[in-house]
Amino acid sequence: MTGSRYAIGVDFGTESGRAVLVDCEDGRELATAVYAYRNGVIDEHLPGPDDDVPLEPDWALQDPEDYVRTFQEAVPQLLAETGVDPVAVVGVGIDFTACTMLPTLADGTPLCLVDGFRRNPHAWVKLWKHHAAQPEADRVNAVAAERDQPWLQRYGGKISSEWFFPKALQILDEAPEVYEAADRLIEAADWAVWQLTGVEARNSCTAGYKAIWSKRDGFPPADYFAALDPRFENVVDEKMSRRIVSIGERAGGLTGRAAEWTGLLPGTPVAVANVDAHVSAPAVTVTAPGTLVAIMGTSICHILLGDELATVDGMCGVVEDGVVPGLFGYEAGQSAVGDIFAWFAESGVPPEYHELARRSGSSVQEVLEREATKLAPGESGLLALDWWNGNRSVLVDADLRGLIVGMTLATRAPELYRALIEATAFGTRVIVDAFESAGVRVDEIVACGGLPERNRLLMQIFADVTDREFAVAASGQAPALGSAMFGAVAAGAAAGGYDSIVEASRHMAHLADTRFRPDPGRHAVYDELHAEYLRLHDLFGRGGDGVMKTLKAIQHRVGGEAQG
Amino acid sequence: MTGSRYAIGVDFGTESGRAVLVDCEDGRELATAVYAYRNGVIDEHLPGPDDDVPLEPDWALQDPEDYVRTFQEAVPQLLAETGVDPVAVVGVGIDFTACTMLPTLADGTPLCLVDGFRRNPHAWVKLWKHHAAQPEADRVNAVAAERDQPWLQRYGGKISSEWFFPKALQILDEAPEVYEAADRLIEAADWAVWQLTGVEARNSCTAGYKAIWSKRDGFPPADYFAALDPRFENVVDEKMSRRIVSIGERAGGLTGRAAEWTGLLPGTPVAVANVDAHVSAPAVTVTAPGTLVAIMGTSICHILLGDELATVDGMCGVVEDGVVPGLFGYEAGQSAVGDIFAWFAESGVPPEYHELARRSGSSVQEVLEREATKLAPGESGLLALDWWNGNRSVLVDADLRGLIVGMTLATRAPELYRALIEATAFGTRVIVDAFESAGVRVDEIVACGGLPERNRLLMQIFADVTDREFAVAASGQAPALGSAMFGAVAAGAAAGGYDSIVEASRHMAHLADTRFRPDPGRHAVYDELHAEYLRLHDLFGRGGDGVMKTLKAIQHRVGGEAQG
Repeated sequence: MTGSRYAIGVDFGTESGRAVLVDCEDGRELATAVYAYRNGVIDEHLPGPDDDVPLEPDWALQDPEDYVRTFQEAVPQLLAETGVDPVAVVGVGIDFTACTMLPTLADGTPLCLVDGFRRNPHAWVKLWKHHAAQPEADRVNAVAAERDQPWLQRYGGKISSEWFFPKALQILDEAPEVYEAADRLIEAADWAVWQLTGVEARNSCTAGYKAIWSKRDGFPPADYFAALDPRFENVVDEKMSRRIVSIGERAGGLTGRAAEWTGLLPGTPVAVANVDAHVSAPAVTVTAPGTLVAIMGTSICHILLGDELATVDGMCGVVEDGVVPGLFGYEAGQSAVGDIFAWFAESGVPPEYHELARRSGSSVQEVLEREATKLAPGESGLLALDWWNGNRSVLVDADLRGLIVGMTLATRAPELYRALIEATAFGTRVIVDAFESAGVRVDEIVACGGLPERNRLLMQIFADVTDREFAVAASGQAPALGSAMFGAVAAGAAAGGYDSIVEASRHMAHLADTRFRPDPGRHAVYDELHAEYLRLHDLFGRGGDGVMKTLKAIQHRVGGEAQG
Repeated sequence: MTGSRYAIGVDFGTESGRAVLVDCEDGRELATAVYAYRNGVIDEHLPGPDDDVPLEPDWALQDPEDYVRTFQEAVPQLLAETGVDPVAVVGVGIDFTACTMLPTLADGTPLCLVDGFRRNPHAWVKLWKHHAAQPEADRVNAVAAERDQPWLQRYGGKISSEWFFPKALQILDEAPEVYEAADRLIEAADWAVWQLTGVEARNSCTAGYKAIWSKRDGFPPADYFAALDPRFENVVDEKMSRRIVSIGERAGGLTGRAAEWTGLLPGTPVAVANVDAHVSAPAVTVTAPGTLVAIMGTSICHILLGDELATVDGMCGVVEDGVVPGLFGYEAGQSAVGDIFAWFAESGVPPEYHELARRSGSSVQEVLEREATKLAPGESGLLALDWWNGNRSVLVDADLRGLIVGMTLATRAPELYRALIEATAFGTRVIVDAFESAGVRVDEIVACGGLPERNRLLMQIFADVTDREFAVAASGQAPALGSAMFGAVAAGAAAGGYDSIVEASRHMAHLADTRFRPDPGRHAVYDELHAEYLRLHDLFGRGGDGVMKTLKAIQHRVGGEAQG
């Protein structure tokens, strides 16, 4: 074989799909193309000429045709822009938000495109942040606890309303006709690969993290599902599949139709799908135990590999073959990080800092960062609990709320800003310590996502608090790069790709030169502050003091009265 | 006697002196005159041509000549403005900040006016908020505790650095030559009356609340003072006086010199001095047990009368004849109230509310009040501890700090503003409950000071939280009116005044028509929230969790390191 070989990765996000074309040899990104979904996040009413089907609060849908349009728009643009010959594109991989799922007919036609179902919200794609299945999630958890289901401990003791079975059960509860008509309930990730290849290849990552599947035990037993609802007893066999394919495998080759969409050649190898967070690990060089991947944006998702199955306090999930074949992939999370800083910049910062930002052509957060950098650890006298959106790991409790202590009449916005950053760093340290206590080691941390590039103070605080060196991914689009790497693996070494994701990562993934090393002096002060954080964390988070839940209960009651 | 009779009250504040001329019959205020002190608060360097004597941090002095200038400027202005014949002015009363004290010669000459002492900061007036005597206050408290001094419990177990003996001891510690040269150490209040009358008549109010004097036990014993410093053993007999005159008594008549200053007649009766907060009680109609006076401004001072001596948790002091002769006057306090709202408006409110304020010609706080009024109790899900400046009553702990709990990504500034107001109201309720638990009843509350006029939402929240009706003083200058009332009492009924402050109050004090009545529904929710407040109050304030003190300790250490 002569000349360069390329792979394409497509990352399906919340508002858009992003495609990248990379050189298989070194992972160099030659071009990126973004398709902004025509129908975006559907959370007010179904798309249609009359906007006549309103959605209830907490609903969030997507349009499956936006995924197809991403293939049709973004991939040809890559080829056009680079002039790369399609014959040199040896593989395609994709990743998706998850659990993002939809009902389809047996041939893969989304039910929302079938006459008679177009105006039924339950026939559309339920996006990851569709939160209307909370009653079903409560049922899933309560019945699991009653029946002592062993898989619960693999998910920190709690299944989220965002995951597969609560969403499926909501369809059954509220639209049994949709449930009945659906030959398939499927992750959008797997549906997209099905559209490319004609093959329904369900991937081990979404199945494991979002649908309670494990390589050793499969899905929960039928009697468990029957206890949720008798009609749900055979949901796996009737609506899903027991054939789960490990990530790193090839799903199939591009069909003629998909080749036409994309401008690629029919038969081009396509990898089984992946989840955006998990696919980032090999893209930031992590394919072995010991290095935690922190995908830091509005929230943080943590991915860590282990040789063995361990029970880690409050993790989101652990899946064998979930991230790298042959290893256990652990996932943990902090439900609000960048979101808290954005909230503060928007809602808690007085005009003088906005004015400074305007005059210096910076953002408010940049001004706050500049000022907060001048402070030493502990100098503000402030401490916060970073639970503005509840706590995912390790407490798994969405009802928890934020707290700040230590204000005086001299407290100023940059001090509060720094305290909020420190709180999220303490939250990460709790997770790191939970992994280490369970015997899953965390030697260093690699960060990717939007925050590491934007906020050096934050990175340094995270290093100082966790006493871990932080590396930063070279690529600003780790998920798409990771997907391209899995595309290269689908192609295989003989075709100019690689035979394993470990090999692909070794050649195609890179770290930035910048590293954030912990400072022993600052770490010593943060150690003291972390002890305070931890005591308040346990006091308010583990039932010692229920003020947050009581406030929430009163708020909901009062809010209900006000509306009623 | 024919025609109206008048009394003049002079209120000596922090930045200015305010004189008012009132009709003895009904308390009608005919005129007000304000003299802004030429030298204001002296906290950077001593006044003088070269500004060559700098002051250390925490120092706050005043110039005694500013008090004389207040008599010289403000009182003649009252007469000129109203055309009232000085013969119709039957009495004069004054009130002061406290403890505001100074060293003088035997004839009353302030030491700072004596050659050889002008450039010595310790020769000047130490203003109430001079906070540099903390080491001496610590010694006063430690020795009192060691020697089991019974008077400690009358002061909530702790003497403040703002009070008389710490300030006197600081002079001895740091400027023994000033201490030695001083024939008198005296409250500025009593010094001002001395200047008017030629009589050194020390009042029971400042002596009781600020100098550990009681009608029954007098001052602490000499052996206690000797234990502080052998040279301090006879401070009372060498530098003070054991002749304490009850408020409500006449100190003497105006001297010829003072008559010249003021334009009043020589011999015009002058009342013994008073403290600004305490003199407000009769001015807002309160001369009997059962009604709490809340002087609400940057902080809150609470005054309550009782028939008997009770030990109330965390009060500032209880003094027989301290407010109304024949009754025990109880004082409690919240160290930051309006200050917290001002801090928030300045430091925690984003531009949109400043813009709204600008456009509607309101203040930011008015905009926040308008928005916060739309919220129901409990609707924000927030709760705060109002300790931005420590906690005076009932915890007597300056090291405590503020706390807010319950934030989410949806929390907005008006919600935080309301939570801060609610927190101060919960703080008042704790004090009300402490009084009632000690058997000193609180049936209703009369508010005065700057806040009640400015913020209706705040008043309603205070009523709803405390389940007490709040009346508001008719006069916006209760201290000056109260002083004028004591002036009328110094004159006596035969001269057109009154024979007691109770009588004077009955005729001259008035309440506004507006009353704030507790709403049972809102009170019920606040009852629930108060239970949460109280639990956090005890947890963080009574030693259950020391996070606030630890943060402060780390902050001070780190700050010291940064400076060092």
